[in-house]
Amino acid sequence: MAGKKVLIIYAHQEPKSLNGSLKKVAVEELSKQGCTVTVSDLYAMNFEPRATRNDITGALSNPEVFRYGIETYEAYKKTALTSDILEEQRKVQEADLVIFQFPLYWFSVPAILKGWMDRVLCQGFAFDIPGFYDSGFLKGKLALLSLTTGGTAEMYTRAGVSGDFRYFLWPLQHGILHFCGFKVLAPQISFGIDVSSEEERKVMVASWAQRLKSIWKEEPIHCTPPWYFQE
Amino acid sequence: MAGKKVLIIYAHQEPKSLNGSLKKVAVEELSKQGCTVTVSDLYAMNFEPRATRNDITGALSNPEVFRYGIETYEAYKKTALTSDILEEQRKVQEADLVIFQFPLYWFSVPAILKGWMDRVLCQGFAFDIPGFYDSGFLKGKLALLSLTTGGTAEMYTRAGVSGDFRYFLWPLQHGILHFCGFKVLAPQISFGIDVSSEEERKVMVASWAQRLKSIWKEEPIHCTPPWYFQE
Repeated sequence: MAGKKVLIIYAHQEPKSLNGSLKKVAVEELSKQGCTVTVSDLYAMNFEPRATRNDITGALSNPEVFRYGIETYEAYKKTALTSDILEEQRKVQEADLVIFQFPLYWFSVPAILKGWMDRVLCQGFAFDIPGFYDSGFLKGKLALLSLTTGGTAEMYTRAGVSGDFRYFLWPLQHGILHFCGFKVLAPQISFGIDVSSEEERKVMVASWAQRLKSIWKEEPIHCTPPWYFQE
Repeated sequence: MAGKKVLIIYAHQEPKSLNGSLKKVAVEELSKQGCTVTVSDLYAMNFEPRATRNDITGALSNPEVFRYGIETYEAYKKTALTSDILEEQRKVQEADLVIFQFPLYWFSVPAILKGWMDRVLCQGFAFDIPGFYDSGFLKGKLALLSLTTGGTAEMYTRAGVSGDFRYFLWPLQHGILHFCGFKVLAPQISFGIDVSSEEERKVMVASWAQRLKSIWKEEPIHCTPPWYFQE
Protein backbone atom coordinates (compact mmCIF):
# COMPACT_ATOMS: atom_id res chain seq x y z
CA MET A 1 0.00 0.00 0.00
CA ALA A 2 1.42 3.33 -1.04
CA GLY A 3 3.13 5.18 1.79
CA LYS A 4 3.60 2.16 4.05
CA LYS A 5 7.07 1.37 5.37
CA VAL A 6 8.37 -2.18 5.43
CA LEU A 7 11.52 -3.50 7.10
CA ILE A 8 12.85 -6.89 6.00
CA ILE A 9 15.27 -8.59 8.39
CA TYR A 10 17.03 -11.05 6.13
CA ALA A 11 19.26 -13.86 7.44
CA HIS A 12 20.76 -15.95 4.65
CA GLN A 13 24.37 -16.13 3.49
CA GLU A 14 23.62 -16.67 -0.22
CA PRO A 15 21.81 -14.22 -2.55
CA LYS A 16 21.09 -17.09 -4.99
CA SER A 17 19.24 -19.10 -2.31
CA LEU A 18 15.49 -19.54 -2.09
CA ASN A 19 15.57 -17.17 0.89
CA GLY A 20 17.35 -14.68 -1.35
CA SER A 21 14.62 -15.05 -3.99
CA LEU A 22 11.86 -14.67 -1.40
CA LYS A 23 13.50 -11.50 -0.10
CA LYS A 24 14.01 -10.13 -3.61
CA VAL A 25 10.45 -10.73 -4.72
CA ALA A 26 9.14 -9.10 -1.54
CA VAL A 27 11.23 -5.98 -2.17
CA GLU A 28 9.96 -5.86 -5.77
CA GLU A 29 6.29 -6.43 -5.00
CA LEU A 30 6.14 -4.05 -2.03
CA SER A 31 8.07 -1.33 -3.90
CA LYS A 32 5.65 -1.69 -6.80
CA GLN A 33 2.83 -0.97 -4.34
CA GLY A 34 4.54 2.28 -3.40
CA CYS A 35 5.86 1.06 -0.07
CA THR A 36 9.26 2.17 1.20
CA VAL A 37 11.26 -1.02 1.76
CA THR A 38 14.39 -1.29 3.89
CA VAL A 39 16.44 -4.49 4.15
CA SER A 40 18.78 -5.44 6.97
CA ASP A 41 20.96 -8.12 5.36
CA LEU A 42 22.44 -9.54 8.56
CA TYR A 43 25.22 -11.71 7.11
CA ALA A 44 26.27 -8.98 4.67
CA MET A 45 26.39 -6.58 7.64
CA ASN A 46 28.33 -9.20 9.66
CA PHE A 47 25.78 -8.36 12.36
CA GLU A 48 27.02 -8.99 15.91
CA PRO A 49 24.85 -11.61 17.67
CA ARG A 50 26.61 -11.65 21.06
CA ALA A 51 25.05 -9.70 23.91
CA THR A 52 28.05 -8.20 25.68
CA ARG A 53 29.34 -5.20 27.57
CA ASN A 54 30.38 -3.73 24.19
CA ASP A 55 26.72 -2.89 23.55
CA ILE A 56 26.92 -0.10 26.10
CA THR A 57 29.07 2.96 25.35
CA GLY A 58 30.50 4.78 28.33
CA ALA A 59 30.25 3.77 31.98
CA LEU A 60 28.13 0.95 33.35
CA SER A 61 25.58 1.61 36.04
CA ASN A 62 27.04 -1.31 38.00
CA PRO A 63 30.67 -2.01 37.04
CA GLU A 64 30.93 -4.72 39.73
CA VAL A 65 28.30 -7.16 38.46
CA PHE A 66 27.37 -7.02 34.77
CA ARG A 67 23.68 -7.58 34.08
CA TYR A 68 22.99 -7.25 30.37
CA GLY A 69 19.25 -6.54 30.58
CA ILE A 70 19.62 -3.83 33.20
CA GLU A 71 22.62 -2.18 31.58
CA THR A 72 21.03 -2.02 28.12
CA TYR A 73 17.79 -0.68 29.63
CA GLU A 74 19.75 2.13 31.30
CA ALA A 75 21.84 2.70 28.18
CA TYR A 76 18.72 2.91 26.01
CA LYS A 77 17.35 5.69 28.22
CA LYS A 78 20.65 7.60 27.93
CA THR A 79 21.09 6.90 24.19
CA ALA A 80 24.25 5.07 25.16
CA LEU A 81 23.69 1.89 23.18
CA THR A 82 26.18 1.01 20.47
CA SER A 83 25.41 2.48 17.04
CA ASP A 84 24.45 -0.75 15.25
CA ILE A 85 21.68 -1.33 17.78
CA LEU A 86 20.45 2.28 17.55
CA GLU A 87 20.37 2.05 13.77
CA GLU A 88 18.23 -1.12 13.82
CA GLN A 89 15.92 0.39 16.43
CA ARG A 90 15.43 3.42 14.19
CA LYS A 91 14.45 1.14 11.29
CA VAL A 92 11.98 -0.78 13.46
CA GLN A 93 10.51 2.45 14.82
CA GLU A 94 9.78 3.70 11.31
CA ALA A 95 8.29 0.45 10.01
CA ASP A 96 4.60 -0.40 9.68
CA LEU A 97 5.45 -4.02 8.90
CA VAL A 98 8.54 -6.06 9.80
CA ILE A 99 9.16 -9.23 7.77
CA PHE A 100 11.71 -11.76 9.02
CA GLN A 101 13.09 -13.87 6.15
CA PHE A 102 15.18 -16.85 7.27
CA PRO A 103 15.83 -20.59 6.97
CA LEU A 104 14.67 -22.57 10.01
CA TYR A 105 17.75 -23.58 12.02
CA TRP A 106 16.98 -26.05 14.79
CA PHE A 107 13.26 -25.20 15.13
CA SER A 108 14.15 -21.51 15.42
CA VAL A 109 15.92 -18.59 13.82
CA PRO A 110 19.64 -18.72 12.92
CA ALA A 111 21.87 -17.37 15.70
CA ILE A 112 22.63 -14.18 13.78
CA LEU A 113 18.89 -13.37 13.76
CA LYS A 114 18.45 -14.42 17.39
CA GLY A 115 21.23 -11.95 18.15
CA TRP A 116 19.29 -9.22 16.36
CA MET A 117 16.31 -9.97 18.60
CA ASP A 118 18.40 -10.23 21.78
CA ARG A 119 20.18 -6.92 21.17
CA VAL A 120 17.73 -4.71 19.27
CA LEU A 121 14.49 -5.45 21.13
CA CYS A 122 15.75 -4.18 24.49
CA GLN A 123 13.73 -3.04 27.48
CA GLY A 124 12.76 0.61 27.13
CA PHE A 125 12.64 0.36 23.36
CA ALA A 126 10.42 -2.66 22.62
CA PHE A 127 8.74 -3.14 26.01
CA ASP A 128 8.88 -2.24 29.66
CA ILE A 129 7.67 -3.83 32.87
CA PRO A 130 4.75 -3.14 32.75
CA GLY A 131 4.31 -2.58 29.02
CA PHE A 132 4.42 -5.94 27.26
CA TYR A 133 2.19 -8.29 25.25
CA ASP A 134 -0.83 -6.24 24.13
CA SER A 135 0.75 -3.11 25.59
CA GLY A 136 4.23 -3.78 24.19
CA PHE A 137 5.86 -0.64 22.77
CA LEU A 138 5.74 -1.87 19.16
CA LYS A 139 1.95 -2.07 19.18
CA GLY A 140 0.38 -0.75 16.02
CA LYS A 141 3.02 -2.51 13.95
CA LEU A 142 2.67 -5.76 12.03
CA ALA A 143 5.21 -8.60 11.95
CA LEU A 144 5.45 -11.69 9.77
CA LEU A 145 7.80 -14.68 9.80
CA SER A 146 8.71 -15.94 6.31
CA LEU A 147 10.78 -19.07 6.62
CA THR A 148 12.04 -22.07 4.72
CA THR A 149 12.34 -25.55 6.20
CA GLY A 150 14.28 -28.67 5.29
CA GLY A 151 11.56 -30.89 6.77
CA THR A 152 8.36 -31.48 4.84
CA ALA A 153 4.92 -30.12 5.73
CA GLU A 154 3.86 -33.64 6.78
CA MET A 155 6.62 -33.77 9.40
CA TYR A 156 5.32 -30.52 10.89
CA THR A 157 1.77 -31.66 11.66
CA ARG A 158 0.28 -32.50 15.05
CA ALA A 159 0.90 -36.22 14.54
CA GLY A 160 4.12 -35.78 12.54
CA VAL A 161 7.59 -36.54 13.96
CA SER A 162 8.35 -32.85 14.43
CA GLY A 163 4.92 -31.77 15.73
CA ASP A 164 2.67 -28.95 14.54
CA PHE A 165 4.70 -26.09 13.04
CA ARG A 166 2.85 -23.75 15.40
CA TYR A 167 4.65 -25.39 18.30
CA PHE A 168 8.07 -24.22 17.16
CA LEU A 169 6.69 -20.83 16.14
CA TRP A 170 5.37 -20.22 19.65
CA PRO A 171 8.52 -18.70 21.20
CA LEU A 172 8.96 -16.45 18.16
CA GLN A 173 5.37 -15.38 17.54
CA HIS A 174 4.17 -15.14 21.13
CA GLY A 175 7.33 -14.90 23.23
CA ILE A 176 9.02 -12.25 21.08
CA LEU A 177 6.68 -10.57 18.61
CA HIS A 178 3.49 -10.53 20.66
CA PHE A 179 5.48 -9.67 23.79
CA CYS A 180 6.71 -6.51 22.06
CA GLY A 181 3.16 -5.61 21.02
CA PHE A 182 3.34 -6.56 17.34
CA LYS A 183 0.21 -7.85 15.65
CA VAL A 184 1.41 -11.07 14.01
CA LEU A 185 0.34 -12.04 10.49
CA ALA A 186 0.18 -15.71 9.50
CA PRO A 187 3.62 -17.18 8.84
CA GLN A 188 4.75 -17.81 5.26
CA ILE A 189 6.35 -21.24 5.36
CA SER A 190 8.14 -22.72 2.35
CA PHE A 191 8.36 -26.36 3.43
CA GLY A 192 10.75 -29.09 2.38
CA ILE A 193 12.95 -26.98 0.17
CA ASP A 194 15.76 -29.55 0.07
CA VAL A 195 13.47 -32.12 -1.50
CA SER A 196 11.60 -29.76 -3.82
CA SER A 197 12.11 -29.33 -7.57
CA GLU A 198 13.17 -26.11 -9.27
CA GLU A 199 9.55 -25.79 -10.45
CA GLU A 200 8.16 -26.21 -6.92
CA ARG A 201 10.53 -23.55 -5.64
CA LYS A 202 9.31 -21.16 -8.32
CA VAL A 203 5.77 -21.76 -7.13
CA MET A 204 6.84 -20.95 -3.56
CA VAL A 205 8.31 -17.63 -4.65
CA ALA A 206 5.30 -16.79 -6.83
CA SER A 207 2.79 -17.58 -4.09
CA TRP A 208 4.66 -15.33 -1.65
CA ALA A 209 4.58 -12.50 -4.21
CA GLN A 210 0.87 -13.17 -4.76
CA ARG A 211 0.12 -13.08 -1.04
CA LEU A 212 1.94 -9.76 -0.65
CA LYS A 213 -0.47 -8.13 -3.10
CA SER A 214 -3.20 -8.22 -0.47
CA ILE A 215 -1.04 -8.32 2.67
CA TRP A 216 -2.46 -5.04 4.01
CA LYS A 217 -5.96 -6.52 4.16
CA GLU A 218 -4.96 -9.50 6.31
CA GLU A 219 -6.16 -9.98 9.87
CA PRO A 220 -3.56 -10.93 12.49
CA ILE A 221 -3.50 -14.41 14.01
CA HIS A 222 -4.21 -15.13 17.67
CA CYS A 223 -1.08 -15.42 19.78
CA THR A 224 -2.49 -15.94 23.26
CA PRO A 225 -2.27 -19.11 25.36
CA PRO A 226 -4.04 -21.47 25.60
CA TRP A 227 -5.97 -20.42 22.50
CA TYR A 228 -2.86 -20.68 20.32
CA PHE A 229 -2.49 -24.42 20.86
CA GLN A 230 -6.17 -25.22 20.38
CA GLU A 231 -6.76 -23.68 16.95
CA MET B 1 29.07 -40.91 39.48
CA ALA B 2 32.78 -41.71 39.42
CA GLY B 3 34.18 -42.00 35.90
CA LYS B 4 31.35 -40.15 34.16
CA LYS B 5 32.17 -37.23 31.89
CA VAL B 6 30.12 -34.05 32.00
CA LEU B 7 30.26 -31.10 29.62
CA ILE B 8 28.74 -27.80 30.76
CA ILE B 9 27.92 -25.31 28.01
CA TYR B 10 27.75 -22.05 29.92
CA ALA B 11 26.36 -18.84 28.43
CA HIS B 12 26.52 -15.93 30.85
CA GLN B 13 28.73 -12.85 30.74
CA GLU B 14 29.16 -12.46 34.50
CA PRO B 15 30.86 -14.96 36.85
CA LYS B 16 29.09 -13.32 39.83
CA SER B 17 25.64 -13.95 38.32
CA LEU B 18 23.19 -16.62 39.47
CA ASN B 19 24.04 -18.52 36.28
CA GLY B 20 27.68 -18.31 37.32
CA SER B 21 26.82 -19.72 40.75
CA LEU B 22 24.74 -22.54 39.26
CA LYS B 23 27.61 -23.44 36.96
CA LYS B 24 30.15 -23.28 39.79
CA VAL B 25 28.13 -25.47 42.13
CA ALA B 26 27.59 -28.03 39.35
CA VAL B 27 31.34 -28.23 38.71
CA GLU B 28 31.97 -28.67 42.44
CA GLU B 29 29.28 -31.27 43.08
CA LEU B 30 30.03 -33.37 39.98
CA SER B 31 33.78 -33.22 40.59
CA LYS B 32 33.18 -34.38 44.17
CA GLN B 33 31.37 -37.40 42.73
CA GLY B 34 34.48 -38.27 40.72
CA CYS B 35 33.12 -37.05 37.38
CA THR B 36 35.39 -35.33 34.88
CA VAL B 37 33.82 -31.93 34.23
CA THR B 38 34.60 -29.71 31.24
CA VAL B 39 33.16 -26.21 30.84
CA SER B 40 32.74 -24.30 27.60
CA ASP B 41 32.42 -20.71 28.80
CA LEU B 42 31.02 -19.23 25.58
CA TYR B 43 31.36 -15.51 26.34
CA ALA B 44 34.85 -15.96 27.78
CA MET B 45 35.76 -17.86 24.58
CA ASN B 46 34.10 -15.11 22.51
CA PHE B 47 32.45 -18.04 20.73
CA GLU B 48 31.43 -17.29 17.14
CA PRO B 49 27.65 -17.64 16.70
CA ARG B 50 27.41 -16.84 12.96
CA ALA B 51 27.10 -19.74 10.51
CA THR B 52 29.28 -18.65 7.61
CA ARG B 53 31.65 -19.83 4.92
CA ASN B 54 34.49 -19.36 7.44
CA ASP B 55 33.38 -22.57 9.14
CA ILE B 56 34.78 -24.59 6.24
CA THR B 57 38.53 -24.70 5.69
CA GLY B 58 39.69 -25.22 2.14
CA ALA B 59 37.55 -25.39 -0.99
CA LEU B 60 33.76 -25.51 -1.04
CA SER B 61 31.97 -28.36 -2.79
CA ASN B 62 29.86 -25.76 -4.60
CA PRO B 63 31.61 -22.38 -4.84
CA GLU B 64 28.75 -20.96 -6.96
CA VAL B 65 25.89 -21.28 -4.48
CA PHE B 66 26.74 -21.45 -0.78
CA ARG B 67 24.55 -23.81 1.22
CA TYR B 68 25.69 -23.93 4.84
CA GLY B 69 24.12 -27.28 5.78
CA ILE B 70 25.54 -29.11 2.78
CA GLU B 71 28.99 -27.54 2.98
CA THR B 72 29.40 -28.27 6.69
CA TYR B 73 28.18 -31.85 6.16
CA GLU B 74 30.83 -32.35 3.49
CA ALA B 75 33.46 -30.57 5.57
CA TYR B 76 32.67 -32.74 8.59
CA LYS B 77 33.33 -35.88 6.55
CA LYS B 78 36.68 -34.47 5.37
CA THR B 79 37.65 -33.07 8.80
CA ALA B 80 37.61 -29.66 7.15
CA LEU B 81 35.53 -27.79 9.71
CA THR B 82 37.13 -24.88 11.51
CA SER B 83 39.02 -25.79 14.69
CA ASP B 84 36.60 -24.22 17.22
CA ILE B 85 33.79 -26.46 15.92
CA LEU B 86 35.99 -29.57 15.95
CA GLU B 87 37.04 -28.85 19.50
CA GLU B 88 33.44 -28.54 20.72
CA GLN B 89 32.45 -31.70 18.85
CA ARG B 90 35.29 -33.55 20.57
CA LYS B 91 34.00 -32.41 23.95
CA VAL B 92 30.43 -33.51 23.11
CA GLN B 93 31.65 -36.86 21.82
CA GLU B 94 33.41 -37.59 25.09
CA ALA B 95 30.56 -36.50 27.35
CA ASP B 96 28.02 -38.77 29.04
CA LEU B 97 25.95 -35.75 30.10
CA VAL B 98 25.76 -32.27 28.57
CA ILE B 99 24.34 -29.49 30.77
CA PHE B 100 23.35 -26.20 29.18
CA GLN B 101 23.46 -23.35 31.72
CA PHE B 102 21.91 -20.10 30.47
CA PRO B 103 19.49 -17.24 31.17
CA LEU B 104 16.30 -17.43 29.09
CA TYR B 105 16.52 -14.78 26.35
CA TRP B 106 13.26 -14.32 24.46
CA PHE B 107 11.77 -17.75 25.28
CA SER B 108 14.99 -19.40 24.07
CA VAL B 109 18.75 -19.57 24.46
CA PRO B 110 20.97 -16.47 24.05
CA ALA B 111 22.26 -16.07 20.49
CA ILE B 112 25.79 -17.11 21.48
CA LEU B 113 24.41 -20.48 22.63
CA LYS B 114 22.12 -20.79 19.60
CA GLY B 115 25.24 -20.32 17.52
CA TRP B 116 26.92 -23.17 19.39
CA MET B 117 23.97 -25.38 18.46
CA ASP B 118 23.82 -24.17 14.84
CA ARG B 119 27.53 -24.72 14.25
CA VAL B 120 28.56 -27.65 16.46
CA LEU B 121 25.60 -30.01 15.95
CA CYS B 122 26.12 -30.39 12.22
CA GLN B 123 24.89 -33.16 9.94
CA GLY B 124 27.29 -36.08 9.96
CA PHE B 125 28.31 -35.38 13.56
CA ALA B 126 25.03 -35.11 15.49
CA PHE B 127 22.60 -36.68 13.01
CA ASP B 128 22.15 -37.75 9.43
CA ILE B 129 19.16 -38.25 7.14
CA PRO B 130 18.17 -40.91 8.11
CA GLY B 131 19.62 -40.94 11.62
CA PHE B 132 17.68 -38.50 13.78
CA TYR B 133 15.38 -38.41 16.82
CA ASP B 134 15.69 -41.82 18.51
CA SER B 135 18.46 -42.77 16.09
CA GLY B 136 20.31 -39.44 16.31
CA PHE B 137 24.06 -39.88 16.58
CA LEU B 138 24.29 -38.59 20.14
CA LYS B 139 22.08 -41.39 21.45
CA GLY B 140 23.33 -42.89 24.68
CA LYS B 141 24.10 -39.42 25.99
CA LEU B 142 22.06 -37.34 28.44
CA ALA B 143 21.26 -33.64 28.13
CA LEU B 144 19.76 -31.17 30.58
CA LEU B 145 18.73 -27.53 30.28
CA SER B 146 19.44 -25.46 33.40
CA LEU B 147 18.05 -22.00 32.94
CA THR B 148 17.07 -18.87 34.79
CA THR B 149 14.05 -16.73 33.90
CA GLY B 150 13.00 -13.16 34.60
CA GLY B 151 9.33 -14.15 34.53
CA THR B 152 7.80 -15.91 37.51
CA ALA B 153 6.69 -19.56 37.63
CA GLU B 154 3.05 -18.37 37.61
CA MET B 155 3.55 -16.63 34.26
CA TYR B 156 4.84 -19.89 32.78
CA THR B 157 1.79 -22.04 33.48
CA ARG B 158 -0.82 -23.24 31.01
CA ALA B 159 -3.18 -20.39 31.90
CA GLY B 160 -0.43 -17.85 32.57
CA VAL B 161 0.38 -14.95 30.20
CA SER B 162 3.48 -16.70 28.87
CA GLY B 163 2.02 -20.22 28.66
CA ASP B 164 3.37 -23.49 30.03
CA PHE B 165 7.17 -23.45 30.26
CA ARG B 166 7.17 -26.70 28.30
CA TYR B 167 5.89 -24.79 25.29
CA PHE B 168 9.03 -22.70 24.99
CA LEU B 169 11.24 -25.67 25.83
CA TRP B 170 9.79 -27.67 22.92
CA PRO B 171 12.14 -26.43 20.17
CA LEU B 172 15.13 -26.97 22.45
CA GLN B 173 14.24 -30.28 24.07
CA HIS B 174 12.56 -31.98 21.11
CA GLY B 175 13.75 -30.05 18.05
CA ILE B 176 17.42 -30.00 19.01
CA LEU B 177 18.29 -32.42 21.82
CA HIS B 178 15.90 -35.25 21.00
CA PHE B 179 16.57 -34.78 17.27
CA CYS B 180 20.26 -35.49 17.92
CA GLY B 181 19.38 -38.60 19.94
CA PHE B 182 20.00 -37.25 23.43
CA LYS B 183 17.88 -38.56 26.28
CA VAL B 184 16.62 -35.39 27.94
CA LEU B 185 16.49 -35.01 31.70
CA ALA B 186 13.91 -32.70 33.31
CA PRO B 187 14.87 -29.04 33.00
CA GLN B 188 16.22 -27.18 36.02
CA ILE B 189 14.41 -23.85 35.98
CA SER B 190 15.26 -21.07 38.41
CA PHE B 191 12.22 -18.83 37.95
CA GLY B 192 11.76 -15.13 38.57
CA ILE B 193 15.34 -14.37 39.52
CA ASP B 194 14.91 -10.61 39.08
CA VAL B 195 12.21 -10.52 41.75
CA SER B 196 13.82 -12.99 44.14
CA SER B 197 15.71 -12.27 47.33
CA GLU B 198 19.33 -13.15 48.02
CA GLU B 199 18.01 -15.90 50.27
CA GLU B 200 15.74 -17.32 47.57
CA ARG B 201 18.62 -17.36 45.12
CA LYS B 202 20.72 -19.31 47.60
CA VAL B 203 17.93 -21.87 47.82
CA MET B 204 17.91 -22.16 44.02
CA VAL B 205 21.64 -22.89 43.96
CA ALA B 206 21.39 -25.34 46.86
CA SER B 207 18.51 -27.27 45.31
CA TRP B 208 20.41 -27.61 42.04
CA ALA B 209 23.42 -28.98 43.96
CA GLN B 210 21.09 -31.32 45.83
CA ARG B 211 19.48 -32.60 42.64
CA LEU B 212 22.88 -33.31 41.10
CA LYS B 213 23.68 -35.74 43.91
CA SER B 214 21.24 -38.24 42.40
CA ILE B 215 21.25 -37.04 38.79
CA TRP B 216 22.55 -40.38 37.46
CA LYS B 217 19.48 -42.18 38.77
CA GLU B 218 16.97 -39.94 36.94
CA GLU B 219 14.75 -41.19 34.14
CA PRO B 220 14.56 -39.04 31.00
CA ILE B 221 11.39 -37.11 30.16
CA HIS B 222 9.22 -37.86 27.13
CA CYS B 223 9.96 -35.59 24.18
CA THR B 224 7.64 -36.95 21.51
CA PRO B 225 4.60 -35.18 20.04
CA PRO B 226 1.74 -35.14 20.81
CA TRP B 227 2.56 -36.75 24.15
CA TYR B 228 4.77 -33.82 25.17
CA PHE B 229 1.92 -31.33 25.20
CA GLN B 230 -0.51 -33.58 27.03
CA GLU B 231 1.54 -34.40 30.11
